[in-house]
Amino acid sequence: MRYEELTIEGRNAVMEAFRSGKTIDKLFVLDGCQDGPVKSITREARKQDTIISYVSRERLDQMSGTGKHQGVIAFAAAYEYATVEDMLKLAREKGEPPFLFLLDNIEDPHNLGAIIRTANLAGAHGVIIPKRRAVGLTATVAKTSAGALNYTPVAKVTNLAATIEELKREGLWFVCADMDGELMYRCNLKGPIGLVIGNEGEGVGRLVKEKCDFTASIPMKGDIDSLNASVAAGVLAYEIVRQRMS
Amino acid sequence: MRYEELTIEGRNAVMEAFRSGKTIDKLFVLDGCQDGPVKSITREARKQDTIISYVSRERLDQMSGTGKHQGVIAFAAAYEYATVEDMLKLAREKGEPPFLFLLDNIEDPHNLGAIIRTANLAGAHGVIIPKRRAVGLTATVAKTSAGALNYTPVAKVTNLAATIEELKREGLWFVCADMDGELMYRCNLKGPIGLVIGNEGEGVGRLVKEKCDFTASIPMKGDIDSLNASVAAGVLAYEIVRQRMS
Repeated sequence: MRYEELTIEGRNAVMEAFRSGKTIDKLFVLDGCQDGPVKSITREARKQDTIISYVSRERLDQMSGTGKHQGVIAFAAAYEYATVEDMLKLAREKGEPPFLFLLDNIEDPHNLGAIIRTANLAGAHGVIIPKRRAVGLTATVAKTSAGALNYTPVAKVTNLAATIEELKREGLWFVCADMDGELMYRCNLKGPIGLVIGNEGEGVGRLVKEKCDFTASIPMKGDIDSLNASVAAGVLAYEIVRQRMS
Repeated sequence: MRYEELTIEGRNAVMEAFRSGKTIDKLFVLDGCQDGPVKSITREARKQDTIISYVSRERLDQMSGTGKHQGVIAFAAAYEYATVEDMLKLAREKGEPPFLFLLDNIEDPHNLGAIIRTANLAGAHGVIIPKRRAVGLTATVAKTSAGALNYTPVAKVTNLAATIEELKREGLWFVCADMDGELMYRCNLKGPIGLVIGNEGEGVGRLVKEKCDFTASIPMKGDIDSLNASVAAGVLAYEIVRQRMS
């Protein structure tokens, strides 16, 4: 995967991106490089909690569009990230109980974009994604979201389980999607809620699942295992909408 | 788009494919070519109602993997198509009122695959797609369907509106998804039903929409226009599931 227009290469350009406050999703650094400027960059990256990968020169050369990476390549977000507090504020402003999506490591940018689109239309106040492993706000995500990224705040957090704990103190309940859960029509999904959607292959991780107040299942009447992640998110989100409207 | 493993090139190979009963989604023929063997192939294609496109030699050369197309290239379906009668039979065997999906020109193979996956898990008896314009059962569709193509029959029909008319005589009701419709929770979606989903950009076509008994809308609480087509299909399909279960 390449997000060419969002790749920042070379020491000065990358350092400048950090200093200007741009959100860097990922930083790739030449493994073993001990130069002063590169060290300054990794120090800045750590300060801003950016994910750093140490990679070989061959890997950097492959990723490089200009051929002049000087040992550092950064991937910037196509859109600015919001904070979880922004989302709670948005709910307060609208006079609605908070309704948030939490995505446990969605990897496919088309799924992430479609889910942000659904979150917007289901009236959710934001989408929370983890920093590690998950796909960020790339150009493909922005395109697939069909403009929803301009309206629906997306926050990146270090630890999804810890964020759930914090939001519980704000009065939110958490429901996660899982096949062995209670049939969704029988769950009470009204009130301030966080909907947790799992990874495409593995579902919701154990640590995150344990933090959830209940597990809801979509009725499965067919032969195969599971719905596409963005379809499952849509079906569950609209069960929440239905219950909120009734 | 290329479906390399499904491309059949050259006069003998294409004629053989038709004779063996293989489903050919599309036939490309060199424009102006009046050779006997090519005429036999187009005659066979017309008999089987295959879509024929007359294209330039440059276009054929571009599409060709072998460079030896001899003026004819056929795209075969990765999976065999079923008939609408197969679907009604499946419903009868299961002792269930028929539940069919009708897709009005879905163009994105990922959406088609995700919708077939949803149809399987929502307990639908089949998916009907039109011959013209829409994407067929390519390898990408098969992959995105996550195996559902092995279980859920897919039929290709010449005219979706005519198929709706025929199915009405079998007792089916038709609901189409459209923003200006009645809120889906207020529609009666029980009994034998066909769910009509529109094209990604344009929604359901006028002729098809006029044949539908009612129009259902998904509540839209956001800032953008529409859900992703496969998400919208999932949300509506599961409203039908909910009503059938209650």
